[in-house]
Amino acid sequence: MKKHNFYAGPAILPKSVMQEAAAACVDFNGSGLSVLEISHRSADFGAVMEEAEALVRELLGLGDEFAVLFLTGGASSQFFMSAMNLLASDAKAAFVNTGRWSDKAIVEAGQFGTVEVIASSEDKNYAYIPKDLAIPADATYLHITSNNTVTGTQYHSFPVTGKPLVADMSSDIFSRPLDMSRFGMIYAGAQKNLGPAGTTLVILRKDLLGKTERAIPTMLDYNTHIKKASMFNTPPAFPIYVAMLNMRWIKANGGVEAMAKRNAAKAALLYDAIEASPNFHCPIAKEDRSVMNAVFMPTDESRTAEFIEKAAEAGCIGVKGHRSVGGFRASMYNAMDIASVQALVDVMNAF
Amino acid sequence: MKKHNFYAGPAILPKSVMQEAAAACVDFNGSGLSVLEISHRSADFGAVMEEAEALVRELLGLGDEFAVLFLTGGASSQFFMSAMNLLASDAKAAFVNTGRWSDKAIVEAGQFGTVEVIASSEDKNYAYIPKDLAIPADATYLHITSNNTVTGTQYHSFPVTGKPLVADMSSDIFSRPLDMSRFGMIYAGAQKNLGPAGTTLVILRKDLLGKTERAIPTMLDYNTHIKKASMFNTPPAFPIYVAMLNMRWIKANGGVEAMAKRNAAKAALLYDAIEASPNFHCPIAKEDRSVMNAVFMPTDESRTAEFIEKAAEAGCIGVKGHRSVGGFRASMYNAMDIASVQALVDVMNAF
Repeated sequence: MKKHNFYAGPAILPKSVMQEAAAACVDFNGSGLSVLEISHRSADFGAVMEEAEALVRELLGLGDEFAVLFLTGGASSQFFMSAMNLLASDAKAAFVNTGRWSDKAIVEAGQFGTVEVIASSEDKNYAYIPKDLAIPADATYLHITSNNTVTGTQYHSFPVTGKPLVADMSSDIFSRPLDMSRFGMIYAGAQKNLGPAGTTLVILRKDLLGKTERAIPTMLDYNTHIKKASMFNTPPAFPIYVAMLNMRWIKANGGVEAMAKRNAAKAALLYDAIEASPNFHCPIAKEDRSVMNAVFMPTDESRTAEFIEKAAEAGCIGVKGHRSVGGFRASMYNAMDIASVQALVDVMNAF
Repeated sequence: MKKHNFYAGPAILPKSVMQEAAAACVDFNGSGLSVLEISHRSADFGAVMEEAEALVRELLGLGDEFAVLFLTGGASSQFFMSAMNLLASDAKAAFVNTGRWSDKAIVEAGQFGTVEVIASSEDKNYAYIPKDLAIPADATYLHITSNNTVTGTQYHSFPVTGKPLVADMSSDIFSRPLDMSRFGMIYAGAQKNLGPAGTTLVILRKDLLGKTERAIPTMLDYNTHIKKASMFNTPPAFPIYVAMLNMRWIKANGGVEAMAKRNAAKAALLYDAIEASPNFHCPIAKEDRSVMNAVFMPTDESRTAEFIEKAAEAGCIGVKGHRSVGGFRASMYNAMDIASVQALVDVMNAF
């Protein structure tokens, strides 16, 4: 039976990408060697790194003012590294708190400078995205979480401020076009729309560096990795290779504009089914619902486990809600076909 | 033609491990899903993490006093994390400088406490391991690099001190049995004897923590990862999975005792051939020559490129010396068969 993978992350990747990755584990580029055993300084792997960076630049339309880095440590490491590198001890960063992940980013940044939470949706269990923000004039940047995997909200337009946006886009990078003139930094753990777990993409406007005098360990300094094009030390070669394959797939399938259309169609199908059903409801403000992660609740809570079981019987796995929220969550990243969403909707309609 | 992979790292892994890894990229455990797309919180992946930790413990005979962590960022990140977590600002760590990697560890640790280099082989281009160390009574630990990939030296016995050893074993972990009562911490980037690039093994005596009051970002605090068994955030799932497969292979092939015998036989074959040849010589003190990475020089420097070409014609790749050393380097990690070393020796004898 076909499995429909609704996991929030690590998450679905295109079948063709998985097959290419498997082939390269045995013989990479006809070299007779596995991609897992070649030097990161070899010409074959150098080409992977170059293509990976070039694809990020092409898919998002990045100018030379941006550096593109493939690091490790997940978005969780960027929570502190972004502040450590961008925020002087006597300076201030503004944050919007839209739930679990922004909250962590706020805590970690607080070790390096002043942190001002200018808006929060905590008052309604993070079921909406705060708007009409007042950005302090002395803020160095505004940090947001563009898509919230746990609660199922997403910025569908980005706040207009005079400040560079620093955005955690772990769960919606490459899902849509971006106006990059608004962003100072974007970071994303790979394991949703970008690739398998094990690498973290950082896109950074280089002129934002050099504002702090603090001593930074070499591996935590963005300049280290910019100077060496993410090859200061051995990079996580295979995760980057698979991310590169996945970006090739995005490009071959029309780029981020096509992904945005594809994702909107899937989300519409699912949210319409939720609205139409007496058995389910979505607790999230309509205009802020995530295209990537739909969170929905059963009308009758006692039937939660039953629905998860019915879904699994139809091959729909990973639909259990986050432990802090309950209910259901269906993640529909780029690689998911609309047929998989239809399979879940069929289970809902039959329920 | 069979390729004999002498790369220093990322490096050779067993063929069977590569084939299992490839199969899991398409269908993991018969689940119908790739290992690249399953949740790190799934039962299937939880079993991988548990088996990986159990294999580390079994292969090295670790007691409960040790934590076993799978982190990211390479040994380069442990250079500063070890000091950040273990060394109080007013305390001292002793270091032996055996070349490039110890030197980096010394620099990074200096940001967090007093660093005293108690011995160095810099006077002879790092061609030996300093012995007869005098450890300052007030040192918290002694840091060493157990095997030096660049210069080709290795500790064949470990310094006896009253202090815990903190050892960078990136290039010889699991190559031999260890008397763990001597070690406070061992760290290793995976990409030599452990697995593919992308994860870093940390073995740590838990009682060494808690000696510093400094504020540590959550992701850099060993306690964070100990409490969550390396699953505080999404771990580098595939690199850990492949490392686990490789440790299964080590166990199935007799464990680290058998690896030590196998590695000694390969090294003897190659070093004997170097000694016997008028065309090559080894600049490293005999008793300190690395079993993992043999560094050797041509008698006639002008024939360096010619030898690398002849080796490549026989399928022996990755034998070019490190750029800072020149000459040749043959890395013979666990997974390399003695037949591959013989293939290189044949090229040397015919040269």
